[in-house]
Amino acid sequence: MTAYTATVTVRLKRGVLDPEAETTKRALERLGFDLDGLRSADRFELDLDAASEDDAAERADEMAERLLANPTIHDYTVEVTERE
Amino acid sequence: MTAYTATVTVRLKRGVLDPEAETTKRALERLGFDLDGLRSADRFELDLDAASEDDAAERADEMAERLLANPTIHDYTVEVTERE
Repeated sequence: MTAYTATVTVRLKRGVLDPEAETTKRALERLGFDLDGLRSADRFELDLDAASEDDAAERADEMAERLLANPTIHDYTVEVTERE
Repeated sequence: MTAYTATVTVRLKRGVLDPEAETTKRALERLGFDLDGLRSADRFELDLDAASEDDAAERADEMAERLLANPTIHDYTVEVTERE
């Protein structure tokens, strides 16, 4: 077994309203920053032991499907790196 | 001016309690997943026009300092990529 960190990034699907991002963008503009757009996402870093990188990715994928993301409104990506 | 996307990742500093991550970890374990640890972070993708990649990074850095991160409890990283 090798130690891996799987990073799951959960984003709202295109077209889903994101009032939090809209508010953050407006607050930045009020501070004088010029922005074309702002998207927010949640990032989960999962430490797990797995037989291979593929195995770790598969398990992270399953965790995203089951709990971390809501398939109705979210897309997600999984990235796996080895951990020292 | 070139179009860039600056990704700001805001994490809790080591030692700061993260009850949300703790709850998520426990919920995953209850679903049968085996985890050594889980950290959560916020990710902001900022679309902006800038003269150079360095300029874009500097502005994203300033936005993180001023609004996106709370220096008392957060660390953040900035990553800039060119946008088509």
